[in-house]
Amino acid sequence: MRVLGIDPGIAIMGFGFIDKAGHKLTPVQYGCIETAAGTPQEVRLKQIYESVCSLLDQYKPDTVAVEKLFFNKNVTNAFSVGQARGVFMLAAAQRGLPIAEYTPMQVKQAVVGYGAAEKRQVQEMVKMLLKLSTVPKPDDVADALAVAICHAHSMVLNERMNGVTRS
Amino acid sequence: MRVLGIDPGIAIMGFGFIDKAGHKLTPVQYGCIETAAGTPQEVRLKQIYESVCSLLDQYKPDTVAVEKLFFNKNVTNAFSVGQARGVFMLAAAQRGLPIAEYTPMQVKQAVVGYGAAEKRQVQEMVKMLLKLSTVPKPDDVADALAVAICHAHSMVLNERMNGVTRS
Repeated sequence: MRVLGIDPGIAIMGFGFIDKAGHKLTPVQYGCIETAAGTPQEVRLKQIYESVCSLLDQYKPDTVAVEKLFFNKNVTNAFSVGQARGVFMLAAAQRGLPIAEYTPMQVKQAVVGYGAAEKRQVQEMVKMLLKLSTVPKPDDVADALAVAICHAHSMVLNERMNGVTRS
Repeated sequence: MRVLGIDPGIAIMGFGFIDKAGHKLTPVQYGCIETAAGTPQEVRLKQIYESVCSLLDQYKPDTVAVEKLFFNKNVTNAFSVGQARGVFMLAAAQRGLPIAEYTPMQVKQAVVGYGAAEKRQVQEMVKMLLKLSTVPKPDDVADALAVAICHAHSMVLNERMNGVTRS
């Protein structure tokens, strides 16, 4: 089962593909899509869309997960992140991929075991869980992998839950 | 010159195509794209994208305009509007269409001549300027037409400015 995690953004969109076999998680490919600040917004969205489509078609995930955003200090930034998130979701929907959403707290809980964990702790756990030699950079890449791990863990949990006969 | 104005939203996206010949504005087609509340977000975004693509290909605007959003009381709503706006901008960018953005104040100034005009005044002016028998409903449609009118007016202004020899 291949999982894609996404940390959406217009300047940098982090992505991380991981394979889940039982409890074992293996990194497949991770990195970020970057667009240049001086470029018109719509052109940047088109670049993101094309890169996302090409990644989805090359690495063929079975399921995708993205952070659920509730708040943002900067509302102009919320619109901008929303736009980038929208074109990613479109590309996934066009391929019939199910999209899971997790709050930042759920991601921290799943990766570190503690919903109020610090960014640095999440990054170290991502490195450890995926047996990477260093913390992936920039932060957006580590965040995308954290979302993918969260989704993989939650699927393991769902499988267990479904295995239990409930009264 | 055909102008498309858009009022983006995930539940209702208003659109208005108008033709501009000199100072004369003629409505071509207007209405809204609606998606159902119970449907997954990514499916709604795909529906919006497909409807937008089909409208762009049918009515072939020369230029498009959309409201520039700076603030929103509800930030979750800002993400949602941003997502819908993102897929619209993608569809326009894929067709090489230039996208103009106007603040709500600029739209009111252009349509009513007064940047702090009330919604109702904008709607009545849209009806009058386009010689419609009634105010288009829902509000999103009138708003989309107002953005189109604003863009058409601003193009007339630019043409005039460019005709003047400046020292």
